[in-house]
Amino acid sequence: MSGFLASSLTRPKGFTAASATCGIKPSGKPDLALIVADRPCAAAGVFTRNKVKGAPVIVARRHLRGRTARAIVCNSGISNVATGKRGLDDAAAMCRATADAINDGCTPRQVLPCSTGIIGRPLPMDKILPGIAAAAGSLRRGPKADTAAAEAILTTDLVPKSAAATVNIGGTKVTVAGVCKGSGMIAPNLATMLAFITTDADFAEVKLLKQSLRSATAETFNRVTVDTDTSTSDAVLVLANGSAGHRPIATARKNLDLFRGALTEVCRELSYQLVKDGEGATKVFRVAVSGAKSVRDADRVGRAVAESPLVKTAVHGADPNWGRIVMAVGKSGAAIYPERLAVSIGQTRVFNNGQPLALRDPALQRLAQAMSQPEVTITIDLNLGPTSCEWLGCDLSREYIHINADYTT
Amino acid sequence: MSGFLASSLTRPKGFTAASATCGIKPSGKPDLALIVADRPCAAAGVFTRNKVKGAPVIVARRHLRGRTARAIVCNSGISNVATGKRGLDDAAAMCRATADAINDGCTPRQVLPCSTGIIGRPLPMDKILPGIAAAAGSLRRGPKADTAAAEAILTTDLVPKSAAATVNIGGTKVTVAGVCKGSGMIAPNLATMLAFITTDADFAEVKLLKQSLRSATAETFNRVTVDTDTSTSDAVLVLANGSAGHRPIATARKNLDLFRGALTEVCRELSYQLVKDGEGATKVFRVAVSGAKSVRDADRVGRAVAESPLVKTAVHGADPNWGRIVMAVGKSGAAIYPERLAVSIGQTRVFNNGQPLALRDPALQRLAQAMSQPEVTITIDLNLGPTSCEWLGCDLSREYIHINADYTT
Repeated sequence: MSGFLASSLTRPKGFTAASATCGIKPSGKPDLALIVADRPCAAAGVFTRNKVKGAPVIVARRHLRGRTARAIVCNSGISNVATGKRGLDDAAAMCRATADAINDGCTPRQVLPCSTGIIGRPLPMDKILPGIAAAAGSLRRGPKADTAAAEAILTTDLVPKSAAATVNIGGTKVTVAGVCKGSGMIAPNLATMLAFITTDADFAEVKLLKQSLRSATAETFNRVTVDTDTSTSDAVLVLANGSAGHRPIATARKNLDLFRGALTEVCRELSYQLVKDGEGATKVFRVAVSGAKSVRDADRVGRAVAESPLVKTAVHGADPNWGRIVMAVGKSGAAIYPERLAVSIGQTRVFNNGQPLALRDPALQRLAQAMSQPEVTITIDLNLGPTSCEWLGCDLSREYIHINADYTT
Repeated sequence: MSGFLASSLTRPKGFTAASATCGIKPSGKPDLALIVADRPCAAAGVFTRNKVKGAPVIVARRHLRGRTARAIVCNSGISNVATGKRGLDDAAAMCRATADAINDGCTPRQVLPCSTGIIGRPLPMDKILPGIAAAAGSLRRGPKADTAAAEAILTTDLVPKSAAATVNIGGTKVTVAGVCKGSGMIAPNLATMLAFITTDADFAEVKLLKQSLRSATAETFNRVTVDTDTSTSDAVLVLANGSAGHRPIATARKNLDLFRGALTEVCRELSYQLVKDGEGATKVFRVAVSGAKSVRDADRVGRAVAESPLVKTAVHGADPNWGRIVMAVGKSGAAIYPERLAVSIGQTRVFNNGQPLALRDPALQRLAQAMSQPEVTITIDLNLGPTSCEWLGCDLSREYIHINADYTT
C-alpha cells in the first residue's frame, strides 16, 4: 500500500478512465471525469446524511437499486443541488449521455452521476453533454488516464488524491483503487467529499460489497473532519467488476475480511489525503481514543476533540494546550470520569487522573517538538472500557478564513 | 431597558460591589470581584454541562443546596479547573475568607465562588486571600463599584458587559441587573461564561427563582454561540434579596411572569453583548427559525446555522451564501422538507420551496446591503409546525485564529 500512486483507478483489471474540459470551471481546468468498467459491476454507495441532497445523489441512489453499474460520470464546478425538477432531469440526462457514448449495451440506469461545486445553479448541459462524448472517446488505462480522472473531480482541493492496494484472494491478486476529492465542508457522515473506488474483486452477492463499503467508510471517511460542515453532495461509490478471476467472494469470512481490509486501507489513505488537503490546513492531527465504554462514546470523544476550534487553533499554534483537549472530552457527551482521564501529546503524558503533570525538561522539549510536527498525535484514555477509535482532523488557520470568507457566490 | 448602563449590579436595593487587584493576571489589571447582599438571598444558579467541571462550580453547586446566599466572589486569570483536591480546598478557602471579611454573620456556605482563566494551574491563594479582604473593605453602591466588578471578571473580553431592567410588581419597582464575561469557548449549555445577576425581588420560594433562571437562560445564554466549545467553568448566578418591598412572588402567575420577563430581558442583553464581544468577532448574526415541529428541532436548526464555520465565514465576508445556510439546515438533524424550506437574509427572500430565487436589482442591492451590516439577520422558515426560536452567533475571522493559535499555555 502506498500513498499517491501514479496509477490508481485503472489498476484493477477491466477499468478505463478519462476526463474532459467542458468549460464549467471559470479556471478552464478539466471538469468532467468518466470511469467505465468493461462489464456490469456489483456496485455500492454511501451518501451524505444531509437532508438536503443534491439531484445526483438522489439519482445515483435510485440507480444503485438496479444492483449493477457500468460507469461513474462526475462533473466539478457546479453541484446540481437545490435545482428542483430540472436538476433531477439534468442528472438523468448525464447518465443517458454516458450510456449512449459507451454504446455497448450499457443502460442509463447502469451509470452513477455525481456533481460537486457551487450550490443552486443549473448545470450547463450544453457544455456537459459534449464533454461526456469527448471523455467517452478518450477512455484509456494507465497512469495518465488515472491522473486525468483524479484531477477533473477537484474543486478547492490543492492536489489530486488517489490510493491503491492489492490483496491475495485464493491465490489471485485482487486490486482495490480509488480517487477522492474534498477539502472544505468536510465532516463526519461524509462532506463535500466524493470518492470513487474500482476493484476487480468478484462478489457472489452485492450485499457483501455493500457491507464492506459501509464498514470501511465508518472507520475512515466518517472519522475525518475539516470544518464540521456536511455537504449536500457526498458520495463514496465502489464498482467491482469481478475480472480478477478468483472464486467469487461469498460469506466465507476469510476472503471477505481480506477484501474489506484492502478496501479499508484504500479508504484510510484517501481520507488521510483529504484531511491533509483540508481548506487552509497546515497540519494533520490524529485523535486516538481508548478505554471508552462503547464505540459511540469513543466516537463522540474523538469527534469532539477533532472538531473543537480551540484544539484546532492550538494545534495550529503548536501550543500543547491539554486544557482545551480536556474541555473537548468533557463536552463530548460521552461517559467520562475526569479523575480517570489520561491525555498524551505525542509520546508525552500531559494529564493523568484528572490532573496535569508537572513537566520539566527534557519532557517539555519533547512536547514542544511533538506539537511542532506537521502531524500531531493526541492520545486520550478514558480508562472506562475496552473500546477505541481514531479520528483525523486538521488545524484551523487564517487561510481557512481567507478561502471561505473571500469566496463569492 | 438599556444596554451598557453606567450602573448595574448595585442598582437593585441592598447590594454592594467592589474589585481588587491580586496580581493573578500578568497585565496587572483588576482580577477579583466581590458582590455582597445586605441579607440572605434566595439564590439560584445554572452551570456548565461539561463533564469536566472546575472546582468552583462543584463548590458553588454544593453551597446552593443551602438555598440562601449572601455573596459572590470571583477571580479572573486562573480558572481553578483540573486542580484536584487542592482546587476544591482553594475554592472553599475563598468562601471562608469572604465570609470572614464580611463579618456580619455571613457563613462560608452563603458564598458562591467562581474562577475564570487558564485551566490546570493552582490558584495563588497568597495573593487571592488578601485581595478578598481588600475588596470587602471597599464595598460600595453606585456606578463606580458596578464598573469595577464588571471589569474584574474579564479575561480575553474587550469590553465589560452589563445590563439592568426594572419591572413594576404590585405597584413596587423591582430591579434586575447583571454583569457577564466570556468571549471564547462560548457555546450552548454555557461556555467560558460567567453572569452574575442581582435583584431586589422577593421570592416566597427559591424554587420559583430557579425556574425563572432556567427559563431565562434557555432562551438567551443557551442560544448564543461563539465557537462551539463549552467551558468547564460556566455559571450564571442570581441573588434575590427581597428588599424591594413588594408582596413576595408566589406561584401567582402574573408577578412571576413579570419578573421572568425582566430577568430574560437582562439575560438577553447580556448574551447579546457576549456574542458581540466574541473572540475575533466583527459582526453579530441572528438566526430566526420558525415553522419547526418542536422546540428541539427549532433549536437544532438555529444552532447548526449559528455554529457552521462556513456560514460564519460567509457572514464575515458579507457573502449572501444561502447554499451554506441550506446545507447547515440540512445537517442539523431536525425534521425538514427541503421543498418547503424558505430562507431570507435581512428582508430579502433568497430561497423558497427548495430552490433559490433568481434575484435582480434592487433586491440584489438590498441583499448586499443587509450582508454588509454589523448585524445580519438570517430567517429560516421550515413550514412544518408552530415553533420558533432565535439564536445569536458571530462571524469567524482571522482574529479568532490569532487570539487562539498565538495564545500560550
